[in-house]
Amino acid sequence: MSKAFNIQEITDGILASNITYVSKAITLVESTKQEHQDVAQEIINAIINKSGHSFRLGITGVPGVGKSTFIESFGLEVINRGHKLAVLAIDPSSQLSKGSILGDKTRMEQLSVHPKAFIRPSPSSGSLGGVARKTKESIIICEAAGYDYIIVETVGVGQSETAVHQLTDFFLLLMLAGAGDELQGIKRGIMEMADGMVITKADGSNLDKAKMARVEYARALHLFPPTESEWIPKVLTCSSTQQMGIKDVYDMIDQYKRHTTINHFFETKRMQQTKQWLHQTINDALIERFYAKANVNDEIKKIEKQLQHENINPYRAAMDLLKKF
Amino acid sequence: MSKAFNIQEITDGILASNITYVSKAITLVESTKQEHQDVAQEIINAIINKSGHSFRLGITGVPGVGKSTFIESFGLEVINRGHKLAVLAIDPSSQLSKGSILGDKTRMEQLSVHPKAFIRPSPSSGSLGGVARKTKESIIICEAAGYDYIIVETVGVGQSETAVHQLTDFFLLLMLAGAGDELQGIKRGIMEMADGMVITKADGSNLDKAKMARVEYARALHLFPPTESEWIPKVLTCSSTQQMGIKDVYDMIDQYKRHTTINHFFETKRMQQTKQWLHQTINDALIERFYAKANVNDEIKKIEKQLQHENINPYRAAMDLLKKF
Repeated sequence: MSKAFNIQEITDGILASNITYVSKAITLVESTKQEHQDVAQEIINAIINKSGHSFRLGITGVPGVGKSTFIESFGLEVINRGHKLAVLAIDPSSQLSKGSILGDKTRMEQLSVHPKAFIRPSPSSGSLGGVARKTKESIIICEAAGYDYIIVETVGVGQSETAVHQLTDFFLLLMLAGAGDELQGIKRGIMEMADGMVITKADGSNLDKAKMARVEYARALHLFPPTESEWIPKVLTCSSTQQMGIKDVYDMIDQYKRHTTINHFFETKRMQQTKQWLHQTINDALIERFYAKANVNDEIKKIEKQLQHENINPYRAAMDLLKKF
Repeated sequence: MSKAFNIQEITDGILASNITYVSKAITLVESTKQEHQDVAQEIINAIINKSGHSFRLGITGVPGVGKSTFIESFGLEVINRGHKLAVLAIDPSSQLSKGSILGDKTRMEQLSVHPKAFIRPSPSSGSLGGVARKTKESIIICEAAGYDYIIVETVGVGQSETAVHQLTDFFLLLMLAGAGDELQGIKRGIMEMADGMVITKADGSNLDKAKMARVEYARALHLFPPTESEWIPKVLTCSSTQQMGIKDVYDMIDQYKRHTTINHFFETKRMQQTKQWLHQTINDALIERFYAKANVNDEIKKIEKQLQHENINPYRAAMDLLKKF
């Protein structure tokens, strides 16, 4: 393998919980260079049997919901309860909105300098599948380094929530009071994925509105079909700036953890996720390889134009294309 | 091509709206024999430019919600409004529950003998992708035969709702009053896909409960993020046996049609569906071909066992597998 990287050194560094090596390993995971990827895979293979022993929390919410301030408050609570915390981000669109990441980190003033916290900005580019894989491997690295509470955050406007849902044990949706314009950003389908919801900014003149929203959402969730985990999703309110309700959010998630540990859903879901991960990787790679062939994309563009202008059978067109390549 | 089938004759028969040929063509579409598939593709290619001119309505609901009686009542209303109606079904699981199909047809007493209606039992076996394709091609055949209102029904318990959603213009969810045990069957995520909801069996002692459920669901839907179509999903009640509220359901769907025609979402969605269909077909075929290779499934089972018993990296395992084949 590469001489530029001492895999043993990095691996030992991760297992010794040395943040420099954790960062280095994640940088390799995120790199697009084949050489770095090879090293990253060696590292993952060396540490994977030390991973898995954490609680993985997915957090989503539109910009403006107060995600960073929530994670700052909630993260400190997590540490107070005796955990070591890692915060990762999935944001496949972030190549379009560079800069928000550093902003996020500076908004987590206390957490970002806390010795028991590790905050990693989101990888700045790549396809959703690629970003999800990188996040998955970053989770493994953090777990091997002893971080036993992992937060994976995403913006609730795209496809990445499904990926986060697929990577985590609990899916928390942050919402603003008032179901009007502020909701425009949230993608349909996300509400039904949530294991819990928190109405943020429940303070000052906003408190009553937030309490009302809580009741309404709780009533709505009650109408949803039951979850596979047999857990009934809860709705809470909180104020990150006033430190109100943050402990309750921690307790709710902890209650979920106990509930799903007792009924074995926790391990069942993890196993399902691992299998899904295997199949997803195979399928993605097959599709990626096909589309990477010379001329395939040009041919598909041609077919798409034909589909627009005349009635051709997409099934037949697809089959002809596959025969051709 | 095959001598056993006169493609010109079948094609002419479909275009002349001859039910015998419509049925024959769908049987070919549903056949697993390669020879039949080849003939079916010839037919589809010959008629596809006559298709597309219909409204496609997806209907879902758990067993017991009264789907057949609803379709009987609603279908007669559709015909009264001047349409020719075709009813198709997606039910990939029906190989497990054979018989329910004939039962369905006999429960649609008037519709099943109406000259302006065509009811087709669901194909009895196959993968979801396969069944979806067959249904898509059956829609094309029915449209070419002059059926301008197509209902695709499915049971709201599996994966097939996403397929129906993908094949239709409007997604209608039938629900029972009382969000308790009766809801057990509905899959999470389906509610947020609905363009409209109908509480069935709103009659007799059930009427008040149904009206209350309507208010509750309407309130819940109001909390959902807005739809891409900018249509606000509505909730109605109806009694199929008392013929109450059926006209309102028709009017609601008609209103949706006008709304999405004016804002061009109707054609945008159809175009999206066609493109998605193309890519889905390519991706499914690539994956299917890989898994069909000798030993691939055995290898995957081996890997899955390893994943269960020890910590191996699923990504690495997938890549190794792909290298092997």
